[in-house]
Amino acid sequence: VTIITLTTDFGIRSGFVGTMKGVIYGIAPQAKTVDISHNIAAQDIHEGAYTLARAVPFFPQGTIHIYVVDPGVGTKRRPLAARLGEYYFVGPDNGLLTPLIEDAEQNKQPVEFFHLDNPTYWLPKISRTFHGRDIFAPVAAHLANGVALSKLGTPFNDPVRLELTRPEKTDRGWIAHITVIDIFGNLTTDLPASALQGRTDVLFRLLGAEVDGIAESYGHNRSGDLVVVVDSEEYMEIAVVNGSAAQKLGAKVGDIVEVINKD
Amino acid sequence: VTIITLTTDFGIRSGFVGTMKGVIYGIAPQAKTVDISHNIAAQDIHEGAYTLARAVPFFPQGTIHIYVVDPGVGTKRRPLAARLGEYYFVGPDNGLLTPLIEDAEQNKQPVEFFHLDNPTYWLPKISRTFHGRDIFAPVAAHLANGVALSKLGTPFNDPVRLELTRPEKTDRGWIAHITVIDIFGNLTTDLPASALQGRTDVLFRLLGAEVDGIAESYGHNRSGDLVVVVDSEEYMEIAVVNGSAAQKLGAKVGDIVEVINKD
Amino acid sequence: VTIITLTTDFGIRSGFVGTMKGVIYGIAPQAKTVDISHNIAAQDIHEGAYTLARAVPFFPQGTIHIYVVDPGVGTKRRPLAARLGEYYFVGPDNGLLTPLIEDAEQNKQPVEFFHLDNPTYWLPKISRTFHGRDIFAPVAAHLANGVALSKLGTPFNDPVRLELTRPEKTDRGWIAHITVIDIFGNLTTDLPASALQGRTDVLFRLLGAEVDGIAESYGHNRSGDLVVVVDSEEYMEIAVVNGSAAQKLGAKVGDIVEVINKD
Repeated sequence: VTIITLTTDFGIRSGFVGTMKGVIYGIAPQAKTVDISHNIAAQDIHEGAYTLARAVPFFPQGTIHIYVVDPGVGTKRRPLAARLGEYYFVGPDNGLLTPLIEDAEQNKQPVEFFHLDNPTYWLPKISRTFHGRDIFAPVAAHLANGVALSKLGTPFNDPVRLELTRPEKTDRGWIAHITVIDIFGNLTTDLPASALQGRTDVLFRLLGAEVDGIAESYGHNRSGDLVVVVDSEEYMEIAVVNGSAAQKLGAKVGDIVEVINKD
Repeated sequence: VTIITLTTDFGIRSGFVGTMKGVIYGIAPQAKTVDISHNIAAQDIHEGAYTLARAVPFFPQGTIHIYVVDPGVGTKRRPLAARLGEYYFVGPDNGLLTPLIEDAEQNKQPVEFFHLDNPTYWLPKISRTFHGRDIFAPVAAHLANGVALSKLGTPFNDPVRLELTRPEKTDRGWIAHITVIDIFGNLTTDLPASALQGRTDVLFRLLGAEVDGIAESYGHNRSGDLVVVVDSEEYMEIAVVNGSAAQKLGAKVGDIVEVINKD
Repeated sequence: VTIITLTTDFGIRSGFVGTMKGVIYGIAPQAKTVDISHNIAAQDIHEGAYTLARAVPFFPQGTIHIYVVDPGVGTKRRPLAARLGEYYFVGPDNGLLTPLIEDAEQNKQPVEFFHLDNPTYWLPKISRTFHGRDIFAPVAAHLANGVALSKLGTPFNDPVRLELTRPEKTDRGWIAHITVIDIFGNLTTDLPASALQGRTDVLFRLLGAEVDGIAESYGHNRSGDLVVVVDSEEYMEIAVVNGSAAQKLGAKVGDIVEVINKD
């Protein structure tokens, strides 16, 4: 059984996502589809990138991930299919895959990109504004049926890449950045827990607030407390117990978090 | 594998949709379910009609579409099952199928309606307010199992029909109407691109705004520009690049769009 | 085919739910997943309890229900797997199963609880904040593969229980309470229709409003009317025809509804 996931900014009101699944099941009735998110902020490639990158490692080998956050639809931006390690990806060449490409390169996994220029594997009629339905869904379904990547288009090796924030070492600790704000208002940063090397006597400063030390989990503090925890992907996260840190601090993606060693 | 789709105004908080799928899989475990939308505006048969009609042609033959936008639940409105061309439909007889019935008739495809009056294929106990679970879900599942339409109820041929807007020819061009507002705030009209016969020197007027000409796609203009494009179903659409035309213009379904030939 | 349902307060933006399904399909590719709700109010065990309890009876025997409304994640609250009658449940031991446990006990069905303390059936690495992905999803998938409950952990028999409201008999009728507010703003109460023994000459008083008698269904009244109906689970419900009773009355879960026999 091949799994095809979908990550889009389509929302869930319009019927666009269901339409893509209709196309997929018409070509690959044996496939299973999984929604990752359809509520990526409109055209926010950055949010799409982190959302997809966090989910991908938990899927079985061979899973095909479609992403459609596509401000450039109808322009000359390339539609692509990619292989990154054990996974396949289908979507516009707009940088959304950057964290996954960097992970694969770092782990010396196979990395291949193909410009989807073979209409054999598209719907017969291509609209100007809905390539998710007309190109990406059918291409993913044909992949699920065993069509080789190389049949779908022409190889290339210069995919668009996003500039992602990186934590910077300072003489007092680190400058980190907020990368993802989740549905609970928790603020994930780009600082891996490993950067602190087990140290817990650390001060976190962001947006005028200060948190002293790292909490074991949300549940050990009082409702409303601002805490720092290690998140589920082993990155440092700022949270409010039973509340929203994003709301409390007015935080947004890209905001700076200063991390200061106390001794 | 038979696909059963669901289109409702239930929202996604209540558990109603999952409950319907529980009923479906209890009767037809081999079926696949696909959500089209559960965020149709409450009891908005018109929005449901366009949302379903746009998705249907992209599903494989034999797909069964359940729709539950049902202001008349518990009154004498008929529950129905229908065949329109290659597709099956199950829901209340309230006009939601109108665009699909008209398409099927225009294309001289088979059109059949059955009043669901045979409780053999319902849940044993029927509530007054949740026919989606008690009648439509089990009927669709039995259809997926191969039960003939004619076993489900009594044939009839006068389904309720909506009055849909139609574009009107004027001596300067067309009067079109907004039919669908999507999640991005794009405004679809009832004017098919073919009505313009390839002409692009056209002026669009709506809600005090004016757009000159037709854009190739969203991506060729600047953020915030109001543009007219051909949408993914080949209808004329008003959009704001990287923004919401609905919000910018305060548009609603039914609003008039004047289309004026410039020479 | 085994069905695994998911009920969470994760919302649908973050990708958390899709990630759980990736874990499930990696272990049990033959399973089918069904979303019940991912929009339970954050950490609202009470809403989760009623939402899950209303959906469960409509699923086929052997269905496995995962629930993750989990304010205590990372503390010592027990992760559990349970059997209640013909169904299986996996989630935190926090009372969310109370209505289902009480139903099973009342119907003298088998009731078993196991503390999930066997990491064999978890992901290799357990985060502090996302047990849905790391413990509950893989445990449910192993259950779907036929692993016995008793292999997953240690039996126990004192699950956390919520205090649920109960209707109280008075000399004039009943004191009932609002238990669930659905997406339409309908107010379900804890008073079963059977408590009225067929009587319809009854007055309902709540939040300063009064409703005289019980309506056959929504459709028999005028838009905006406040009515009392029997809901789809045979409980008394307060509704506004084509509107929201919750909004009209400012109602919240737990509010009192006085039911007064008129003779």
